[in-house]
Amino acid sequence: MTRRLSITSTSNDRLKTVRRLRRRRSDGVFLVEGHGVLRHALDAGAAIREVYAAPDLFLGAVDCSLVELAERRGARVVELSASAFASISAHVRPDGLAAVVERWSTALATLRLPRRPVIVVAEAIERPGNLGTIVRTACGAGADALLSCDARTDVFHPDTVRGSVGTLFDVPIAEAASPFAIPWLRERGVRLVVATPDGERPYWEGRYQGATALVIGSERHGVTEAWRRAANETVRIPMAAPADSLNVAVAAGVVLFEAARQRQAER
Amino acid sequence: MTRRLSITSTSNDRLKTVRRLRRRRSDGVFLVEGHGVLRHALDAGAAIREVYAAPDLFLGAVDCSLVELAERRGARVVELSASAFASISAHVRPDGLAAVVERWSTALATLRLPRRPVIVVAEAIERPGNLGTIVRTACGAGADALLSCDARTDVFHPDTVRGSVGTLFDVPIAEAASPFAIPWLRERGVRLVVATPDGERPYWEGRYQGATALVIGSERHGVTEAWRRAANETVRIPMAAPADSLNVAVAAGVVLFEAARQRQAER
Repeated sequence: MTRRLSITSTSNDRLKTVRRLRRRRSDGVFLVEGHGVLRHALDAGAAIREVYAAPDLFLGAVDCSLVELAERRGARVVELSASAFASISAHVRPDGLAAVVERWSTALATLRLPRRPVIVVAEAIERPGNLGTIVRTACGAGADALLSCDARTDVFHPDTVRGSVGTLFDVPIAEAASPFAIPWLRERGVRLVVATPDGERPYWEGRYQGATALVIGSERHGVTEAWRRAANETVRIPMAAPADSLNVAVAAGVVLFEAARQRQAER
Repeated sequence: MTRRLSITSTSNDRLKTVRRLRRRRSDGVFLVEGHGVLRHALDAGAAIREVYAAPDLFLGAVDCSLVELAERRGARVVELSASAFASISAHVRPDGLAAVVERWSTALATLRLPRRPVIVVAEAIERPGNLGTIVRTACGAGADALLSCDARTDVFHPDTVRGSVGTLFDVPIAEAASPFAIPWLRERGVRLVVATPDGERPYWEGRYQGATALVIGSERHGVTEAWRRAANETVRIPMAAPADSLNVAVAAGVVLFEAARQRQAER
């Protein structure tokens, strides 16, 4: 085993660089934190450049094996004191594991779809935590891909990764401008089902059997006119007054699991 | 109209008190922010003690009328400069409206239920934002009450209010320890449906027609043994690997809207 670098000072330059990754987007890499997320990254074969490990904070021996696995795969391991780790952590109770991971391409051209895919289209999402929860929900519902269109946030934002609880490494994700995404989906015979408060029928009467993209809109403005015009069908989630909307990830979950239910019943 | 107090200095003592409400629980009052939330508070007849208004940040004349309505109902209005308002705001783009509101009793004994209620039981929720999104989801699905059991967070936490987008003022909420809540529900003939990953049947095969409490557990540990033993039925949300769980508010939404759908179909 290579001798590991060890840092105890919170003012170390390397830690300053890591803290900067929490605040500012970098083109090459992104920051992840926590045992669960690192586990997903390793299982998915992500390129992990650096692991920051604070053994004093570890919850069990399984944390050591995870670090060793990352090291064998080529990650540089830096050992931190508990206080040094706290200075790079965004968690209230950090578990002593963080990593710097290489971004991968999210170009539309890289998406490989099965024959009858379910795709989630998330339009102009503003909050990275919401985007992360949408990724987690899409993964849980068995969606084949997430298409983030005109996003106001970075899909590799630390809060997106955290909200996804690591499923960001599992769900194929593409980013595209809507004017490119709409024809791209149409050319592949994907039916567009748009979820909107004024949808023509309740979501449980929607049809999700064939190749389907479920389109959900931004937190404040919902789905834009471009997608509504392109829709093959619009569905609504009937709401009890005085509520007039749901959190965007909750709305995605309600419709996606109905789609999963219908597709399963059909098989 | 009473002459309004006006503050431009961010170090004003009154603003320090308001900022403290963001960080620390107070027994008598809680802090709310934003036009939408204040609207819900007024519509619900909440006791608004103080309104903090920064007209320079207002988005429209409707904000002025809201402040005037609160003033007519007895709230003390304090006008702030944009910078003074920013010092008490938790929002990236504050809309110039915040208020200090009186807490109300969340004792179980205060809950009034209809004949065949749907109740959401949220057990040991840790994150106030999640609790708020559960409140919003419960409201949207037409639930009659939310019962927060053994919560690790305050139902009047600023992030709960924010996550609820104001529906905290609309959904009847009670807080109780589980050993009191379980017999309380049983005595009222409420059927307990527990959502858990190892539930005996898929959630869409659950029965939600009569008086029903949907029980959801904490973010990390799920529903505890006490509620599982008390369950009349356990349901699961079938999950696609490698995902093994959903955000707790998303899970609540998926099951609650299925319950709403079944109850509507029956009518």
